[in-house]
Amino acid sequence: MSAPRWLSPAEQRAWRTQLALHKLLMHRLDRELQAHSLSVNDYEILVNLSESSGRRMRMSDLADATIQSRSRLSHQISRMEAKGLVTREECRDDRRGTFAVLTDEGWDTIQRVAPDHVAGVREHFIDRLTDEQLDALEKAYRPIVEHLKELR
Amino acid sequence: MSAPRWLSPAEQRAWRTQLALHKLLMHRLDRELQAHSLSVNDYEILVNLSESSGRRMRMSDLADATIQSRSRLSHQISRMEAKGLVTREECRDDRRGTFAVLTDEGWDTIQRVAPDHVAGVREHFIDRLTDEQLDALEKAYRPIVEHLKELR
Repeated sequence: MSAPRWLSPAEQRAWRTQLALHKLLMHRLDRELQAHSLSVNDYEILVNLSESSGRRMRMSDLADATIQSRSRLSHQISRMEAKGLVTREECRDDRRGTFAVLTDEGWDTIQRVAPDHVAGVREHFIDRLTDEQLDALEKAYRPIVEHLKELR
Repeated sequence: MSAPRWLSPAEQRAWRTQLALHKLLMHRLDRELQAHSLSVNDYEILVNLSESSGRRMRMSDLADATIQSRSRLSHQISRMEAKGLVTREECRDDRRGTFAVLTDEGWDTIQRVAPDHVAGVREHFIDRLTDEQLDALEKAYRPIVEHLKELR
Protein backbone atom coordinates (compact mmCIF):
# COMPACT_ATOMS: atom_id res chain seq x y z
CA MET A 1 0.00 0.00 0.00
CA SER A 2 1.18 3.51 -0.83
CA ALA A 3 1.46 6.22 1.84
CA PRO A 4 -1.85 7.87 2.73
CA ARG A 5 -2.53 11.10 0.84
CA TRP A 6 -3.62 13.23 3.80
CA LEU A 7 -5.81 16.25 3.10
CA SER A 8 -4.01 19.56 2.62
CA PRO A 9 -5.01 22.41 4.95
CA ALA A 10 -7.22 23.92 2.20
CA GLU A 11 -8.85 20.54 1.48
CA GLN A 12 -9.38 19.96 5.18
CA ARG A 13 -11.03 23.39 5.57
CA ALA A 14 -13.39 22.74 2.65
CA TRP A 15 -14.30 19.28 3.93
CA ARG A 16 -14.94 20.38 7.50
CA THR A 17 -16.90 23.42 6.33
CA GLN A 18 -19.19 21.22 4.25
CA LEU A 19 -19.78 18.92 7.23
CA ALA A 20 -20.41 21.78 9.65
CA LEU A 21 -22.71 23.59 7.21
CA HIS A 22 -24.94 20.58 6.81
CA LYS A 23 -25.13 19.69 10.50
CA LEU A 24 -25.77 23.23 11.70
CA LEU A 25 -28.37 23.83 9.00
CA MET A 26 -30.30 20.64 9.77
CA HIS A 27 -30.09 21.42 13.49
CA ARG A 28 -31.57 24.89 12.86
CA LEU A 29 -34.30 23.77 10.45
CA ASP A 30 -35.23 20.95 12.83
CA ARG A 31 -35.65 23.47 15.63
CA GLU A 32 -37.82 25.70 13.48
CA LEU A 33 -39.99 22.75 12.39
CA GLN A 34 -40.45 21.72 16.05
CA ALA A 35 -42.88 24.65 16.30
CA HIS A 36 -45.07 22.55 13.99
CA SER A 37 -44.25 19.24 15.75
CA LEU A 38 -42.27 18.05 12.71
CA SER A 39 -38.65 17.10 12.03
CA VAL A 40 -36.72 17.68 8.80
CA ASN A 41 -37.13 13.95 8.10
CA ASP A 42 -40.91 14.21 8.49
CA TYR A 43 -40.95 17.26 6.25
CA GLU A 44 -38.97 15.55 3.51
CA ILE A 45 -41.41 12.63 3.45
CA LEU A 46 -44.43 14.94 3.34
CA VAL A 47 -42.87 16.82 0.38
CA ASN A 48 -42.11 13.62 -1.53
CA LEU A 49 -45.63 12.25 -1.06
CA SER A 50 -47.33 15.57 -1.80
CA GLU A 51 -45.48 15.80 -5.14
CA SER A 52 -46.34 12.22 -6.17
CA SER A 53 -49.26 11.10 -8.28
CA GLY A 54 -52.15 10.11 -6.00
CA ARG A 55 -50.11 11.50 -3.07
CA ARG A 56 -48.65 8.02 -2.58
CA MET A 57 -45.35 6.23 -3.13
CA ARG A 58 -44.09 2.67 -2.85
CA MET A 59 -42.06 2.33 0.34
CA SER A 60 -39.04 1.19 -1.70
CA ASP A 61 -39.25 4.28 -3.95
CA LEU A 62 -39.69 6.54 -0.94
CA ALA A 63 -36.62 4.97 0.70
CA ASP A 64 -34.62 5.65 -2.48
CA ALA A 65 -35.95 9.21 -2.81
CA THR A 66 -35.10 10.08 0.79
CA ILE A 67 -31.79 8.13 0.75
CA GLN A 68 -32.34 5.87 3.73
CA SER A 69 -32.71 2.17 4.47
CA ARG A 70 -36.10 0.46 4.24
CA SER A 71 -36.00 -0.34 7.95
CA ARG A 72 -35.24 3.23 9.00
CA LEU A 73 -38.00 4.53 6.72
CA SER A 74 -40.42 1.98 8.16
CA HIS A 75 -39.85 3.28 11.71
CA GLN A 76 -40.22 6.86 10.49
CA ILE A 77 -43.51 6.06 8.71
CA SER A 78 -44.84 4.35 11.86
CA ARG A 79 -44.19 7.52 13.87
CA MET A 80 -45.88 9.64 11.19
CA GLU A 81 -48.85 7.22 11.08
CA ALA A 82 -49.27 7.69 14.82
CA LYS A 83 -49.51 11.44 14.20
CA GLY A 84 -52.12 10.92 11.48
CA LEU A 85 -49.95 12.35 8.69
CA VAL A 86 -49.65 9.21 6.53
CA THR A 87 -51.13 5.73 6.23
CA ARG A 88 -49.83 2.48 4.80
CA GLU A 89 -51.76 0.69 2.06
CA GLU A 90 -51.12 -2.79 0.73
CA CYS A 91 -51.59 -3.06 -3.01
CA ARG A 92 -53.42 -6.28 -3.86
CA ASP A 93 -52.70 -6.20 -7.63
CA ASP A 94 -49.06 -5.46 -7.12
CA ARG A 95 -46.79 -7.87 -5.33
CA ARG A 96 -44.14 -5.19 -5.05
CA GLY A 97 -45.51 -4.23 -1.71
CA THR A 98 -46.73 -1.46 0.45
CA PHE A 99 -47.48 2.16 -0.34
CA ALA A 100 -47.13 5.16 1.98
CA VAL A 101 -50.08 7.49 1.41
CA LEU A 102 -50.47 11.11 2.52
CA THR A 103 -53.62 11.65 4.61
CA ASP A 104 -55.75 14.79 4.32
CA GLU A 105 -54.19 15.88 7.60
CA GLY A 106 -50.72 15.31 6.13
CA TRP A 107 -51.67 17.37 3.08
CA ASP A 108 -53.04 20.21 5.24
CA THR A 109 -49.89 20.07 7.37
CA ILE A 110 -47.48 20.45 4.46
CA GLN A 111 -49.59 23.33 3.04
CA ARG A 112 -49.53 25.09 6.40
CA VAL A 113 -45.86 24.49 7.24
CA ALA A 114 -44.23 24.98 3.82
CA PRO A 115 -44.22 28.83 3.88
CA ASP A 116 -42.35 28.89 7.23
CA HIS A 117 -39.94 26.17 6.17
CA VAL A 118 -39.06 27.79 2.85
CA ALA A 119 -38.52 31.10 4.70
CA GLY A 120 -36.02 29.27 6.95
CA VAL A 121 -34.25 27.65 4.00
CA ARG A 122 -33.94 31.13 2.43
CA GLU A 123 -32.85 32.87 5.62
CA HIS A 124 -30.21 30.33 6.61
CA PHE A 125 -28.95 29.17 3.20
CA ILE A 126 -30.32 30.26 -0.19
CA ASP A 127 -30.42 34.03 0.38
CA ARG A 128 -26.86 33.95 1.75
CA LEU A 129 -25.51 32.77 -1.61
CA THR A 130 -25.46 34.61 -4.94
CA ASP A 131 -27.08 33.12 -8.04
CA GLU A 132 -23.57 32.44 -9.32
CA GLN A 133 -22.62 30.59 -6.12
CA LEU A 134 -25.81 28.51 -6.25
CA ASP A 135 -25.12 27.64 -9.86
CA ALA A 136 -21.48 26.74 -9.12
CA LEU A 137 -22.58 24.61 -6.17
CA GLU A 138 -25.01 22.63 -8.30
CA LYS A 139 -22.43 22.18 -11.09
CA ALA A 140 -19.76 21.00 -8.62
CA TYR A 141 -21.99 18.65 -6.63
CA ARG A 142 -24.27 17.21 -9.32
CA PRO A 143 -21.63 14.83 -10.79
CA ILE A 144 -20.68 13.67 -7.28
CA VAL A 145 -24.33 12.94 -6.52
CA GLU A 146 -24.54 10.90 -9.74
CA HIS A 147 -21.36 8.99 -8.84
CA LEU A 148 -22.66 8.20 -5.35
CA LYS A 149 -26.08 7.12 -6.65
CA GLU A 150 -24.37 4.63 -8.97
CA LEU A 151 -22.52 3.13 -6.00
CA ARG A 152 -25.73 2.44 -4.05
CA MET B 1 -47.97 38.02 6.31
CA SER B 2 -46.58 38.44 2.81
CA ALA B 3 -46.87 35.70 0.19
CA PRO B 4 -44.27 32.92 0.54
CA ARG B 5 -41.19 33.40 -1.64
CA TRP B 6 -40.99 29.88 -3.05
CA LEU B 7 -37.64 28.69 -4.35
CA SER B 8 -36.98 29.21 -8.06
CA PRO B 9 -36.15 26.08 -10.10
CA ALA B 10 -32.42 26.92 -9.93
CA GLU B 11 -32.60 27.53 -6.16
CA GLN B 12 -34.50 24.30 -5.69
CA ARG B 13 -31.92 22.37 -7.71
CA ALA B 14 -29.04 23.78 -5.65
CA TRP B 15 -30.83 23.09 -2.35
CA ARG B 16 -31.78 19.53 -3.22
CA THR B 17 -28.32 18.82 -4.60
CA GLN B 18 -26.70 19.96 -1.35
CA LEU B 19 -29.07 17.71 0.66
CA ALA B 20 -28.52 14.70 -1.60
CA LEU B 21 -24.74 15.18 -1.66
CA HIS B 22 -24.51 15.11 2.10
CA LYS B 23 -26.82 12.15 2.64
CA LEU B 24 -25.27 10.00 -0.08
CA LEU B 25 -21.76 10.83 1.05
CA MET B 26 -22.44 9.99 4.71
CA HIS B 27 -24.19 6.80 3.63
CA ARG B 28 -21.16 5.77 1.58
CA LEU B 29 -18.54 6.70 4.19
CA ASP B 30 -20.60 4.91 6.85
CA ARG B 31 -20.58 1.77 4.73
CA GLU B 32 -16.83 1.96 4.24
CA LEU B 33 -16.23 2.50 7.97
CA GLN B 34 -18.41 -0.54 8.76
CA ALA B 35 -15.45 -2.65 7.61
CA HIS B 36 -13.74 -1.29 10.74
CA SER B 37 -16.88 -1.59 12.93
CA LEU B 38 -17.16 2.21 13.09
CA SER B 39 -19.73 4.80 11.99
CA VAL B 40 -19.01 8.32 10.72
CA ASN B 41 -20.20 9.58 14.11
CA ASP B 42 -17.71 7.32 15.92
CA TYR B 43 -14.96 8.46 13.59
CA GLU B 44 -15.68 12.13 14.17
CA ILE B 45 -15.42 11.67 17.94
CA LEU B 46 -12.16 9.73 17.65
CA VAL B 47 -10.70 12.52 15.48
CA ASN B 48 -11.75 15.25 17.90
CA LEU B 49 -10.30 13.44 20.91
CA SER B 50 -7.09 12.44 19.11
CA GLU B 51 -6.44 16.09 18.20
CA SER B 52 -7.06 17.38 21.74
CA SER B 53 -4.48 17.96 24.43
CA GLY B 54 -4.23 14.85 26.63
CA ARG B 55 -6.54 13.08 24.12
CA ARG B 56 -9.51 14.21 26.20
CA MET B 57 -12.33 16.73 25.96
CA ARG B 58 -15.09 17.96 28.24
CA MET B 59 -18.38 16.37 27.18
CA SER B 60 -19.88 19.83 26.67
CA ASP B 61 -17.01 20.90 24.38
CA LEU B 62 -17.22 17.63 22.47
CA ALA B 63 -20.98 18.14 21.99
CA ASP B 64 -20.28 21.64 20.60
CA ALA B 65 -17.45 20.42 18.37
CA THR B 66 -19.54 17.62 16.87
CA ILE B 67 -22.72 19.75 16.74
CA GLN B 68 -25.07 17.52 18.66
CA SER B 69 -27.05 17.60 21.90
CA ARG B 70 -25.49 16.50 25.20
CA SER B 71 -27.95 13.64 25.48
CA ARG B 72 -27.25 12.30 21.99
CA LEU B 73 -23.52 12.54 22.60
CA SER B 74 -23.91 10.74 25.91
CA HIS B 75 -25.57 7.74 24.21
CA GLN B 76 -22.89 7.75 21.54
CA ILE B 77 -20.09 7.79 24.13
CA SER B 78 -21.74 4.91 26.01
CA ARG B 79 -21.70 2.79 22.84
CA MET B 80 -18.06 3.70 22.22
CA GLU B 81 -17.17 2.90 25.85
CA ALA B 82 -18.68 -0.56 25.38
CA LYS B 83 -16.33 -1.05 22.41
CA GLY B 84 -13.33 0.06 24.49
CA LEU B 85 -12.60 3.14 22.35
CA VAL B 86 -13.17 5.82 24.99
CA THR B 87 -13.72 6.17 28.72
CA ARG B 88 -15.44 8.76 30.87
CA GLU B 89 -13.52 10.53 33.63
CA GLU B 90 -14.94 12.78 36.30
CA CYS B 91 -12.75 15.73 37.10
CA ARG B 92 -12.59 16.32 40.85
CA ASP B 93 -11.02 19.80 40.69
CA ASP B 94 -13.43 20.99 38.09
CA ARG B 95 -17.15 21.18 38.72
CA ARG B 96 -17.75 21.63 35.01
CA GLY B 97 -18.14 17.94 34.67
CA THR B 98 -17.14 14.86 32.84
CA PHE B 99 -14.40 14.29 30.28
CA ALA B 100 -14.42 11.83 27.41
CA VAL B 101 -10.95 10.29 27.10
CA LEU B 102 -9.51 8.33 24.19
CA THR B 103 -8.22 4.89 25.26
CA ASP B 104 -5.07 3.31 23.81
CA GLU B 105 -7.35 1.09 21.78
CA GLY B 106 -9.21 4.16 20.52
CA TRP B 107 -5.91 5.76 19.54
CA ASP B 108 -4.74 2.60 17.73
CA THR B 109 -8.10 2.42 15.97
CA ILE B 110 -7.97 5.96 14.59
CA GLN B 111 -4.36 5.43 13.44
CA ARG B 112 -5.35 2.22 11.66
CA VAL B 113 -8.58 3.50 10.10
CA ALA B 114 -7.58 7.04 9.10
CA PRO B 115 -5.74 6.08 5.85
CA ASP B 116 -8.79 4.19 4.52
CA HIS B 117 -11.19 6.90 5.59
CA VAL B 118 -9.18 9.73 4.02
CA ALA B 119 -8.94 7.68 0.81
CA GLY B 120 -12.75 7.45 0.80
CA VAL B 121 -13.16 11.18 1.44
CA ARG B 122 -10.80 11.82 -1.51
CA GLU B 123 -12.41 9.29 -3.83
CA HIS B 124 -16.00 10.37 -3.19
CA PHE B 125 -15.59 14.11 -2.63
CA ILE B 126 -12.28 16.00 -2.52
CA ASP B 127 -10.65 14.58 -5.67
CA ARG B 128 -13.85 15.23 -7.65
CA LEU B 129 -13.54 18.98 -7.11
CA THR B 130 -10.86 21.35 -8.39
CA ASP B 131 -8.81 23.50 -6.00
CA GLU B 132 -10.85 26.48 -7.24
CA GLN B 133 -14.12 24.70 -6.48
CA LEU B 134 -12.92 23.73 -3.00
CA ASP B 135 -11.86 27.30 -2.35
CA ALA B 136 -15.18 28.69 -3.64
CA LEU B 137 -17.08 26.19 -1.50
CA GLU B 138 -15.26 27.22 1.64
CA LYS B 139 -15.71 30.94 0.87
CA ALA B 140 -19.44 30.48 0.20
CA TYR B 141 -20.19 28.28 3.22
CA ARG B 142 -17.89 29.74 5.88
CA PRO B 143 -20.07 32.85 6.55
CA ILE B 144 -23.19 30.65 6.71
CA VAL B 145 -21.47 28.38 9.24
CA GLU B 146 -20.61 31.46 11.33
CA HIS B 147 -24.20 32.72 11.12
CA LEU B 148 -25.59 29.35 12.21
CA LYS B 149 -23.11 29.02 15.07
CA GLU B 150 -24.24 32.39 16.42
CA LEU B 151 -27.84 31.19 16.44
CA ARG B 152 -27.07 28.12 18.56
